[in-house]
Amino acid sequence: MFEDVTYLDNAAATRLDERVLEAMKPYFFELYAVATSQFGYSLGIEATDALDGARTRIADRIGAQPDEVIFTSGGTEASNLALKGAARAIEKGRDHIVVSAIEDFPVLYSARTLRKEGYQVTEVRVDETGRIDLDQLREVVTPDTALVSIQAANQEIGTTQDLEAIGEICREHGALFHTDATHTFTRVPLDVSQVPVDLVTMAAHTIHGPKGIGALFIRDGTPIQKWIDGGFQEFNLRPGVENIPGAVGFAKAVELVTPEETQRLQGLRDRLIDRLLAIPDTRLNGHPVHRLPHNANISFRFVEGESLLLHLDLRGFAVSTGSACFSRSLEASHVILGIGGDHERAHGSVRFTFGRYNDEKDVDAVSEAVAEVVAELRRISPLGKRRP
Amino acid sequence: MFEDVTYLDNAAATRLDERVLEAMKPYFFELYAVATSQFGYSLGIEATDALDGARTRIADRIGAQPDEVIFTSGGTEASNLALKGAARAIEKGRDHIVVSAIEDFPVLYSARTLRKEGYQVTEVRVDETGRIDLDQLREVVTPDTALVSIQAANQEIGTTQDLEAIGEICREHGALFHTDATHTFTRVPLDVSQVPVDLVTMAAHTIHGPKGIGALFIRDGTPIQKWIDGGFQEFNLRPGVENIPGAVGFAKAVELVTPEETQRLQGLRDRLIDRLLAIPDTRLNGHPVHRLPHNANISFRFVEGESLLLHLDLRGFAVSTGSACFSRSLEASHVILGIGGDHERAHGSVRFTFGRYNDEKDVDAVSEAVAEVVAELRRISPLGKRRP
Repeated sequence: MFEDVTYLDNAAATRLDERVLEAMKPYFFELYAVATSQFGYSLGIEATDALDGARTRIADRIGAQPDEVIFTSGGTEASNLALKGAARAIEKGRDHIVVSAIEDFPVLYSARTLRKEGYQVTEVRVDETGRIDLDQLREVVTPDTALVSIQAANQEIGTTQDLEAIGEICREHGALFHTDATHTFTRVPLDVSQVPVDLVTMAAHTIHGPKGIGALFIRDGTPIQKWIDGGFQEFNLRPGVENIPGAVGFAKAVELVTPEETQRLQGLRDRLIDRLLAIPDTRLNGHPVHRLPHNANISFRFVEGESLLLHLDLRGFAVSTGSACFSRSLEASHVILGIGGDHERAHGSVRFTFGRYNDEKDVDAVSEAVAEVVAELRRISPLGKRRP
Repeated sequence: MFEDVTYLDNAAATRLDERVLEAMKPYFFELYAVATSQFGYSLGIEATDALDGARTRIADRIGAQPDEVIFTSGGTEASNLALKGAARAIEKGRDHIVVSAIEDFPVLYSARTLRKEGYQVTEVRVDETGRIDLDQLREVVTPDTALVSIQAANQEIGTTQDLEAIGEICREHGALFHTDATHTFTRVPLDVSQVPVDLVTMAAHTIHGPKGIGALFIRDGTPIQKWIDGGFQEFNLRPGVENIPGAVGFAKAVELVTPEETQRLQGLRDRLIDRLLAIPDTRLNGHPVHRLPHNANISFRFVEGESLLLHLDLRGFAVSTGSACFSRSLEASHVILGIGGDHERAHGSVRFTFGRYNDEKDVDAVSEAVAEVVAELRRISPLGKRRP
């Protein structure tokens, strides 16, 4: 139906796995009961069992109890619930919220909404690799801090954070710790029985699961207020008819991500980084070691990222500039600016994401194409006037 | 995989249509690009086209413009956005909100949340058939009224409202009018170019579409504030990676509902009502004429609805008591109480819903089963001590 394209943008990880669809099918066509009929008929109970089975498999993956995981419509909703639900539920007097300057929009703008409601919001700096300045964090977190929200990995540059160290700082002052793990979940191990994190955002669409389903880990005892009004589903925290096919598909997608596969993607990533850094005037954005195993972000000096993207498109490769949420705009990425990059670097950055369906041939083909296009763009573009 | 059951509860309308899944598949496996790359590659544009195509088909069905429809994760979210987003966007001074007493929980509890934020909330009465008291509505809607939210049809008793008359009353005072059309959408025609309604909640799962996707009609010019924080999707009103397969499936589900099919379901409904009212001491809840074409709600005196449900379950029929959102609780339905029923009547009410996969054989079989079970329950139950 559609032409053949090699996806190396965020979509590379969003292609549904056929096995996920197979797992969902019985819940489309056979067991499509509503799960909320606890005092109801047996099918309602079977539906509830299916939902709770999916919940258990997702909870297991992060060392959580099943009743510490609720399903949401995705990562965006989960992060909104985490920030607004927790901030509003916390004891009066604690009105301070801390986020990093390079959070993805659901966290960043939820914090800004809370600021309008009277909360104090601090945006902590990151260093040039995108890692949180832990010294600054130690300074800003106080007994007034209700919640700290710092991502597990950045959506653009791929830098992962030291969640354990951040969590310890939060614990010292009794602040809740939320992490947006949309991009790390299953790819970078997280064990909430070891790491002091209270709220974790997860999503299915980044691991070949269905779109429209995500989850929030809420550690037992964490104060949280219902944020969407409606029925009493999901331990009375997330109303609406349960998306059981989505939940079952999400759990299947989780099951299908293995350490071996992640290792393979990391190999592709490293191969791509090696090839692209061989092009003159390039640099890797983000941390060289503490980064997503399936993400590379490269800046090409004297090149517009958008031009590169369009030329790669013509050659059948899909890549991204900026964040997936924001590339509709030509504004410079707040992430690249946040790590101290200038506008030129922000505009010349391109993100590559690997998924299950990528292989070494893709890496070699796209590296070759990038090298050719960059050379061509530098030759014809005014930005391409190389300094002597 | 699961035993054979005749669904006559809400789930009857939630079984996915195979043709819907077929329509979604290309967007699972071939065109899974992220739609937000307007300045991005051609696949992003194709993804945007798919999303806008789905949007257009849904908008067409209610006589709206495509840019008046945004996708949400379902009816619950759509109603939350309608109430909270509109109330908070409206000019200062208008702080009054009107809902009916028998609204479904997303509207009822969103209104109660707004009350906690300082809004005045009036719950208008309904008559014994479940229809809004238009005279009371005329009295309570004033120039201070920001928003009136009254459902298109009730989720339990199936009573439909006169949206045109309600909308006219709102217009007289410049109040916005939202209707939760979760249960009427496509089954009861609505043309927003004729009916003065500003916001309409729609959902896919009630018409054999996918769970986890819904939509909100927002008439051009209606003040509305973004309620979920995040990216800039859906005209900057609903962030999150777009659920394109869900949107395409929703549009396909809309296309598949025809007036002829609805007529057929209405025939099943009327046949069931006739059969069940032939059982002594029964009554139809809701309006005899102004009701959903695919819903019947019957009270059986001297019988517990839950017992009836369990006995029907043993015989392979799935039916509901109370609302789908609430049947986990044994509290009496606020809807039956709202139409003046007592607790006994509330507990003895059973709801039947018809979908595409039901036929006359189902009606005849369930009618026979209900007659037998009701007779048996009345014989053995303490409630069954018939008055002389």
